[in-house]
Amino acid sequence: MSLPNTIGSRFAFTSFGESHGRCVGVVIDGCPAGLNVTESDVQKLLDLRKPGQSIVTTQRSEQDKVEIISGLFNGMTTGAPICLLIWNSDQRSSDYQKFRNTPRPGHADYPAFVKYAGLNDYRGGGRFSGRITAGYVMAGSVALKLLGETLGIRIVAYTKELGGITADLSKLSSDEISENRYSNDVRCPDQKVAEKMKELIVRERGRGDSLGGIVECVTTNMPPGIGEPIFSSIEAELAKSIFSIPAVKGIEFGSGFSGSKLKGSENNDVFVKSPEGRVVTKTNNSGGILGGISIGMPIVFRVAFKPASSIASAQRTLDLSTMEEKELIVPGRHDPTVVPRAVPVVECMTACVIADLAIAGGFIPRVLKK
Amino acid sequence: MSLPNTIGSRFAFTSFGESHGRCVGVVIDGCPAGLNVTESDVQKLLDLRKPGQSIVTTQRSEQDKVEIISGLFNGMTTGAPICLLIWNSDQRSSDYQKFRNTPRPGHADYPAFVKYAGLNDYRGGGRFSGRITAGYVMAGSVALKLLGETLGIRIVAYTKELGGITADLSKLSSDEISENRYSNDVRCPDQKVAEKMKELIVRERGRGDSLGGIVECVTTNMPPGIGEPIFSSIEAELAKSIFSIPAVKGIEFGSGFSGSKLKGSENNDVFVKSPEGRVVTKTNNSGGILGGISIGMPIVFRVAFKPASSIASAQRTLDLSTMEEKELIVPGRHDPTVVPRAVPVVECMTACVIADLAIAGGFIPRVLKK
Amino acid sequence: MSLPNTIGSRFAFTSFGESHGRCVGVVIDGCPAGLNVTESDVQKLLDLRKPGQSIVTTQRSEQDKVEIISGLFNGMTTGAPICLLIWNSDQRSSDYQKFRNTPRPGHADYPAFVKYAGLNDYRGGGRFSGRITAGYVMAGSVALKLLGETLGIRIVAYTKELGGITADLSKLSSDEISENRYSNDVRCPDQKVAEKMKELIVRERGRGDSLGGIVECVTTNMPPGIGEPIFSSIEAELAKSIFSIPAVKGIEFGSGFSGSKLKGSENNDVFVKSPEGRVVTKTNNSGGILGGISIGMPIVFRVAFKPASSIASAQRTLDLSTMEEKELIVPGRHDPTVVPRAVPVVECMTACVIADLAIAGGFIPRVLKK
Amino acid sequence: MSLPNTIGSRFAFTSFGESHGRCVGVVIDGCPAGLNVTESDVQKLLDLRKPGQSIVTTQRSEQDKVEIISGLFNGMTTGAPICLLIWNSDQRSSDYQKFRNTPRPGHADYPAFVKYAGLNDYRGGGRFSGRITAGYVMAGSVALKLLGETLGIRIVAYTKELGGITADLSKLSSDEISENRYSNDVRCPDQKVAEKMKELIVRERGRGDSLGGIVECVTTNMPPGIGEPIFSSIEAELAKSIFSIPAVKGIEFGSGFSGSKLKGSENNDVFVKSPEGRVVTKTNNSGGILGGISIGMPIVFRVAFKPASSIASAQRTLDLSTMEEKELIVPGRHDPTVVPRAVPVVECMTACVIADLAIAGGFIPRVLKK
Repeated sequence: MSLPNTIGSRFAFTSFGESHGRCVGVVIDGCPAGLNVTESDVQKLLDLRKPGQSIVTTQRSEQDKVEIISGLFNGMTTGAPICLLIWNSDQRSSDYQKFRNTPRPGHADYPAFVKYAGLNDYRGGGRFSGRITAGYVMAGSVALKLLGETLGIRIVAYTKELGGITADLSKLSSDEISENRYSNDVRCPDQKVAEKMKELIVRERGRGDSLGGIVECVTTNMPPGIGEPIFSSIEAELAKSIFSIPAVKGIEFGSGFSGSKLKGSENNDVFVKSPEGRVVTKTNNSGGILGGISIGMPIVFRVAFKPASSIASAQRTLDLSTMEEKELIVPGRHDPTVVPRAVPVVECMTACVIADLAIAGGFIPRVLKK
Repeated sequence: MSLPNTIGSRFAFTSFGESHGRCVGVVIDGCPAGLNVTESDVQKLLDLRKPGQSIVTTQRSEQDKVEIISGLFNGMTTGAPICLLIWNSDQRSSDYQKFRNTPRPGHADYPAFVKYAGLNDYRGGGRFSGRITAGYVMAGSVALKLLGETLGIRIVAYTKELGGITADLSKLSSDEISENRYSNDVRCPDQKVAEKMKELIVRERGRGDSLGGIVECVTTNMPPGIGEPIFSSIEAELAKSIFSIPAVKGIEFGSGFSGSKLKGSENNDVFVKSPEGRVVTKTNNSGGILGGISIGMPIVFRVAFKPASSIASAQRTLDLSTMEEKELIVPGRHDPTVVPRAVPVVECMTACVIADLAIAGGFIPRVLKK
Repeated sequence: MSLPNTIGSRFAFTSFGESHGRCVGVVIDGCPAGLNVTESDVQKLLDLRKPGQSIVTTQRSEQDKVEIISGLFNGMTTGAPICLLIWNSDQRSSDYQKFRNTPRPGHADYPAFVKYAGLNDYRGGGRFSGRITAGYVMAGSVALKLLGETLGIRIVAYTKELGGITADLSKLSSDEISENRYSNDVRCPDQKVAEKMKELIVRERGRGDSLGGIVECVTTNMPPGIGEPIFSSIEAELAKSIFSIPAVKGIEFGSGFSGSKLKGSENNDVFVKSPEGRVVTKTNNSGGILGGISIGMPIVFRVAFKPASSIASAQRTLDLSTMEEKELIVPGRHDPTVVPRAVPVVECMTACVIADLAIAGGFIPRVLKK
Repeated sequence: MSLPNTIGSRFAFTSFGESHGRCVGVVIDGCPAGLNVTESDVQKLLDLRKPGQSIVTTQRSEQDKVEIISGLFNGMTTGAPICLLIWNSDQRSSDYQKFRNTPRPGHADYPAFVKYAGLNDYRGGGRFSGRITAGYVMAGSVALKLLGETLGIRIVAYTKELGGITADLSKLSSDEISENRYSNDVRCPDQKVAEKMKELIVRERGRGDSLGGIVECVTTNMPPGIGEPIFSSIEAELAKSIFSIPAVKGIEFGSGFSGSKLKGSENNDVFVKSPEGRVVTKTNNSGGILGGISIGMPIVFRVAFKPASSIASAQRTLDLSTMEEKELIVPGRHDPTVVPRAVPVVECMTACVIADLAIAGGFIPRVLKK
């Protein structure tokens, strides 16, 4: 916890910007020299996260057009810090002033007010806004490219559950999962269930309510040996980074919470030889990680997102100036669920962590040889 | 992830030692000057973790007697680094040599072999042994005292679930929970359920098998405003540190995974005035944390532990030298479940994180005034 | 050395940008909330560093107009990261292409080419350009304001020696030194000597040559107790940050190198009571620092700058493609000496370090109370 | 400045222990696996630093016998943290109690008292004692071996000047310098001058006084490309680490302070082809570093040590309890000069920094292949 707005130590990024300030951005430090990066590489992922995409997201309208203002030369990374940012445009800040004294349930208004003695930029949630994750996506899109081009690593996240409705992925190949996930508004590879999820969202939005859900993330082509015990295990670093996404309240790897109900003889993954002659495990209850280190199996984890805190219906809260309870209406434009837009964010944060650990372990050199 | 064996940045510690080496120890850096610390403060907690305590733990017999070899003067911390260690005595290293080529399922043998090209100290699991957590307890016992004496913070963990059997704590006061938890071998405050858990452990141990479970941890008397967004939120830092405990595969805060099935109107905690006139929330689905910052409610999280990987019954594995499958018997002396001994470890790691963040937030000064 | 483009850990900043890229900027993390900061606060110091100010500096013409694009709200810091940047305009990049194969003596061309396999942005020196120090000034101007407003600390640097000509400050009060330093082109408080320095610069510039010199920096109103032994002593942290300024080749505190020729009885500073009843020392050979910690006396150090490496006259170098020696003419627009423009940079880097250590030591709170 | 008792980030060490506590030690983190290290490797260097070696050093008698208590297996490093320590034996702590109220001139007594509110372990200087550098030597001896075995790097320091007497090394080969330096009590390769230095030390010791001096350090076989701009340049990181040695007040690289009097045409080092066909420079005014990165020439720097603060003759000081001046006699057993014993310390700190940067730059792998 050295610097609270920087994450990572070999492939690292520093976040800046506010929801209703001038911009949201990041500075990446540690990206190897020699990686081709274009603004459209980043834009592609930003577009998957940006607001106003569909009926299931907020109607705030932002172009979220990335600018890369340092660190590239002749279209390639140079080893220098890479600053990427998007400019804000469609803020409606007047909406937020009253929450200083009447904190919204489920939001950071109250603890932020206490911590910063009322000095924090509360407009649109300021630094606590989900909009900050646009920065995570900018950093992660570079990490994704780095991992893909050097190690062939592929990171695929998707909506596993939404409002209690669970996808059935048992009949889908990993390619189908990957292809399907961005083909519907809820980012669920199970197209049929996706429809149901969407209906539920539309219904609850109509009722002024919101929904939570579970995102699952699968990282394949991981070489064994990535992860830095004892305090920078894959689980430790991924958990830290995933909990930096607003609304995340849980994470589990492999068999996770349900695995804690199994016996050792059931949960242990047996080592076997794959058809290609590699060491693999028959099952993957470990989520691809033993002792905090990758074993060459897919890294699998699930993330619990709480239902979006901003809801349209009236809520009770406390007026801090009078210490009396009162009713609160949160107008603004809000996501009925953050899950679909969180999918690319989870992928991107995962990519940043894996890139960080891969560089630390010597799996990616400082300069990419052409 | 700057240094993989150091955690924290204001109250931090560096871990050293191996399961079958000469010792296990830590160096704490950043503890404020002026805290009374004695070896018996530390010993009390170490005794709760040490092996051989009961039938539900490993029979390895270690005194685990702590020595504090730096950082105290006249019984008080001085602001200098505090080195604490225990010497190992009851190792049986010959047990472990064969696992280099025939990795134990569920253990770090295989990825460690790959990562360190066979050079790591594999005896007793080396750095991957649960024994390393004795260091966490040494550091945490100092953090616990610091938090208690300066802020009155109290951290209580206990076995919530074991082998699928769940405790019912709904009828227990927080004082009863705190008092009961160390009164039985399984560290479960629900005495009746504790009996059943113990029976299950004894039975599965007899069958050469092992069990997992869930530890819950509750931190009370937290002032609002602790936590350093955006990357050093309470959740992010606690998750990182808890995943550094071997066998942890999941963590959730407040309503966690089950909260992801609720609607916003159900999951949002309403702010109300407490009888004492403080700002509190009616429910605590947030686990005491909004925007990564404490709100003054109890910090509540649950940790999923997988069933212990070492089991006495025969298992299949791969012989890495021949790439042929073979049967493996893991002799040694093992815990049929790590959950009971993990309870003080969870408390201690929590204490280290809260101390770190409390110092970062200015809640604890550099020198404790007398 | 965790992240090579970030310095500091409580008041820290991350540098980005290139000499001939789109911009040069920094992100400050850790600045307390509640400090009034305006773009003109920063601009005032940037103007002292900017090129083209007088005949003794490069004729590159840059407005260096700062924009603060995050971290302020209602004119005050909020505790969030502060991003400040200037846009580049007057680049002439074609000048630099040939230096890839024929490295300029005294410049980073050769080692950078080796380190980054030719991928670094070499235009205008890229990240190695003195232009990067505009970022140091942006960060430092915030630190200067923070130190001034909270602790009354004042940091005054000036040209002590240039091209071997030494200023005589023995007859000037500290107020005169402070006022005079920016009243002439060479930033030397001794106006008479300043004239001679300027003549020398003009003469050597005419000859196509360059000059070095010594900057002295005095920090007053330091409370005793600042500095974090053993590795974050004031000397250690100041030295690290000052050596991050291009062209610096030496630093000494207090009596420094000449003090190493004295006897202990001569060099030891005797403690006495000041007229105001404070503990002071009769002399200040320690430069205000004992054991790495401030003693309440002025922090005094001197910095040796080498003569500017870019000179207009012909030089010999090696053609790396043929490994044959050849003559090189470095056209471009260069500083005949970096010393005058380095004066505000030294002040600013000093401010960043003192702010960092003051926060670490608990001398400045996280939120400035109004 | 994240953790004040840890230095480095890839090859890093954490210091613990006090002058009159139980021990002095370090924990190294980040040393690659597969390096042969024995206690006698470390002991050899510790013996060069230990007290009581000759008439020119303190008569405190300590065996300084190293114990390596973690991180080795089968005589080799494993990638795990390496804890090394020496136990203290010959303390005479009663000597030091009075300095709490009557601070010794030139010592940290006063600022430490202020900083830690009198809680620091003042016996023998506590953490401010030169004895802490025994830890630097333990860490450095591992780094020296690592650099030697992987890159053939060789680090040679020696007394360049003592009490104003300067060695003439112009007629010595680098091998003679290396061989001679430890052949006399003052560690000066110029044997004739060494005699004079020794005489001066004996004389001033007799007078109850002390001397300072200059240590020069030369690192050869450096590959080009080591150093991490912009804030972890070789100069920045070496300066930070060297200033962590008590009594250091200045450092300069290459032509340093005297170079600041030269013209660019004189100070620039011309690139030429070496007889072996490598890129070298004709002169080495840069000290082997351009842009903070090694160029393949020897890294050369000089360190100014102040005269030892502890002197036997009476000195004036302030009684802090009464704020009245009084006479102070510092009994104890002290070094008449710290320079000779500092020579191996400078070598060792240099080795730690170069190892750290070499690993960061990818010059040394995580696991040493046999």
